[in-house]
Amino acid sequence: MRSKGARNARFDERRAELLDRLRARLTQRGAMRPTLRELAMSAECSVSTLNHYFGRRDDIVMAVFEDSGQRGQGQFQVTRKAGPEFENSIRDAVILSWTVMTRHGVAAMLAMGMVEGMRDDLLGPAFIDTMFEPFVIALAERLDTHVARGQMRDVDTRMAALALASPLLLGALHQGELGGAKAYPLDGEAFVDHVVQGFVRAYRAD
Amino acid sequence: MRSKGARNARFDERRAELLDRLRARLTQRGAMRPTLRELAMSAECSVSTLNHYFGRRDDIVMAVFEDSGQRGQGQFQVTRKAGPEFENSIRDAVILSWTVMTRHGVAAMLAMGMVEGMRDDLLGPAFIDTMFEPFVIALAERLDTHVARGQMRDVDTRMAALALASPLLLGALHQGELGGAKAYPLDGEAFVDHVVQGFVRAYRAD
Repeated sequence: MRSKGARNARFDERRAELLDRLRARLTQRGAMRPTLRELAMSAECSVSTLNHYFGRRDDIVMAVFEDSGQRGQGQFQVTRKAGPEFENSIRDAVILSWTVMTRHGVAAMLAMGMVEGMRDDLLGPAFIDTMFEPFVIALAERLDTHVARGQMRDVDTRMAALALASPLLLGALHQGELGGAKAYPLDGEAFVDHVVQGFVRAYRAD
Repeated sequence: MRSKGARNARFDERRAELLDRLRARLTQRGAMRPTLRELAMSAECSVSTLNHYFGRRDDIVMAVFEDSGQRGQGQFQVTRKAGPEFENSIRDAVILSWTVMTRHGVAAMLAMGMVEGMRDDLLGPAFIDTMFEPFVIALAERLDTHVARGQMRDVDTRMAALALASPLLLGALHQGELGGAKAYPLDGEAFVDHVVQGFVRAYRAD
């Protein structure tokens, strides 16, 4: 007879394995918004297995959001801690954000969250809560430190964080997930630099 | 016997009528990404009627994108023409953009465009081309005038337009289409003001 702990460990392991396949299917190019049946096919299990491990389709999507938020914790921690100097600190946070979005698949996850969450009363707020706000809050904390040190103007740092994060997110989605790179290419490095320069001019203490 | 002109007028009229219903269905809260069959049901016609008037599902979505771009022409025209003074001109363009998004249903259309276009090689670029870039290009033209007059720094105005438009778009989507207003409310008027102030500080000529 296996102990409860061993059974739970087996459950968690199997669930994590399914989660990997579900995440891959939910971000599959050319086939977004899969049905529950399509999710089960990609996870190589039955619909009732998915129901057992997660619940309904909404629960599956929310589990993938949660997991994605967990995977972001490292980036959020780094983003939270301000560097010593204002401009370099902004640049470091921006480059980290741009890099994880465009090179480590985070833009695809954010695109998926928006596709699932738009105009949906359950999944929209869940996306905001687990995937979007944790980054904005971490960035606002970094900015709070700069305000406290007198390096940045005393503004609403939540709004400033949104103003800084938005062009990065939209730039990454525009070029990659929406395929804008072909007809309307954007030099990523120059754009990151443009956003940093603009932000520093707008917010550095006089 | 009816003339070819009369037949074409009837075709266009019927197509426009279907387009209205299709647009409503494509942005329906809680039921985004409708199937072709669902689109036909909402348009109160058969799938083969939709095929006759538009083509395949992708063609229907692109027809709605085009129509939405056409409806935006008035806003794009106004956005293109700079006002006499830099700060007021930026404020006017920002308020117009925020108002059409949050009060005249444009955020819902942009959300729909992103839901249909993300990670889709055909619909992503079509969304960018018909709905997203026309606004960014118009805004960049407004900024070009301010640069030419010496009111604004001589920067890449396309990047500056993206930097200005992005927080507005994301703010509107966050609050409305993603339901962030409940747990993470944003004072729209204060946010618009914050974005304008930040932009003017960052870009006005020294």
